[in-house]
Amino acid sequence: MSSNKVLLADIGNSYFHIYDGTKVEHLLYEEAIRKYHNKTLCYISVKQQLDAAIEEIASWKNISSQMKLEGAYETMGVDRQALCHSHDDGVFVDAGSAITVDVMHHGIYMGGFIYPGLKAMLNTYRAISPALETQLNETISLERLPTTTKDGISYGIIASIKALIDQHCDGKKLYFTGGDGKLLSTFFEEAIYDEMLVFDGMRKVIKETQIC
Amino acid sequence: MSSNKVLLADIGNSYFHIYDGTKVEHLLYEEAIRKYHNKTLCYISVKQQLDAAIEEIASWKNISSQMKLEGAYETMGVDRQALCHSHDDGVFVDAGSAITVDVMHHGIYMGGFIYPGLKAMLNTYRAISPALETQLNETISLERLPTTTKDGISYGIIASIKALIDQHCDGKKLYFTGGDGKLLSTFFEEAIYDEMLVFDGMRKVIKETQIC
Repeated sequence: MSSNKVLLADIGNSYFHIYDGTKVEHLLYEEAIRKYHNKTLCYISVKQQLDAAIEEIASWKNISSQMKLEGAYETMGVDRQALCHSHDDGVFVDAGSAITVDVMHHGIYMGGFIYPGLKAMLNTYRAISPALETQLNETISLERLPTTTKDGISYGIIASIKALIDQHCDGKKLYFTGGDGKLLSTFFEEAIYDEMLVFDGMRKVIKETQIC
Repeated sequence: MSSNKVLLADIGNSYFHIYDGTKVEHLLYEEAIRKYHNKTLCYISVKQQLDAAIEEIASWKNISSQMKLEGAYETMGVDRQALCHSHDDGVFVDAGSAITVDVMHHGIYMGGFIYPGLKAMLNTYRAISPALETQLNETISLERLPTTTKDGISYGIIASIKALIDQHCDGKKLYFTGGDGKLLSTFFEEAIYDEMLVFDGMRKVIKETQIC
């Protein structure tokens, strides 16, 4: 099959993301397996708990090991590596269950860090105290110090990750992907949001290696 | 009784902190009630679940409402307000179950934000994925991008809160208190760690109001 037509899947900690060459679908694990187990599909996965179930599907091919990125470390999530393959230079933010921030320079991986996802952060505050249970203020101003609990929490989540990402941009393009990528990108000037970035990286590697 | 001799208690989300005029004790709730229920004691509390049990103790006095800080908002934790009473100017970080960061300018509260505590943050990563379960690297370098999962998580926790605190210092003194205050203060230049700050604020208000 040609790399342009093959179904591609990025199996994350919460969802199955499937690209059919035209659009991206976000499915629950069971739903994705039921719908696509008879289709030819190449996937990468960070969901180790699913490995046994998925490896039994004869028409699916695990291409995680082909995503190896120059300079990357052994336990770096394969979705982060695929994302970094999408462009040779930039700061790459994948905002899903976790928020990963990775820096690429001339095709070499420079390092990165991990932050909990927005939903996980809100759950964390609630677990500390019922008084800290709140929703995210998605339009919070970062220009002035908050003076309410809801804003103090929203600011703690958004302004801290923004302050750290800003420190690492240094003239590089800033790319966002993932379920909360669009929202998070609104707090940055000149940020690029693109839900295709991980698949772009996978397609680039597939094209180079002809693995699918 | 004189304000110099009275037992003072700061009842937090996880522990009872008691100051006897010489030293601070950190006790579990039951232990603190058993040990001190016959002693005269003035307290502030953010642990609403304990209110009913504590209000029955005849020799204990709740002075939370006296901690009201100029410029503070209605639901601001009373421990944060007491902490801000300790000095008229500064950035005040209380690193316990939650990490609160508050700014005081000429005796007026300017605002602040809330971040989960270090332990809560580590639990959050573990809840997202078993692959993200790790301990904090307490001596992590913030000078370069991490290249391991453990360091990527430790950096995500420490560097993000540091980047945001640094933005708000602006020539002000930086004060740390709380169980993780000493550790967190090591990542800042010229930070002051003092486990007495909340009690200093309580004593200042007690002296002014003669409430105890």
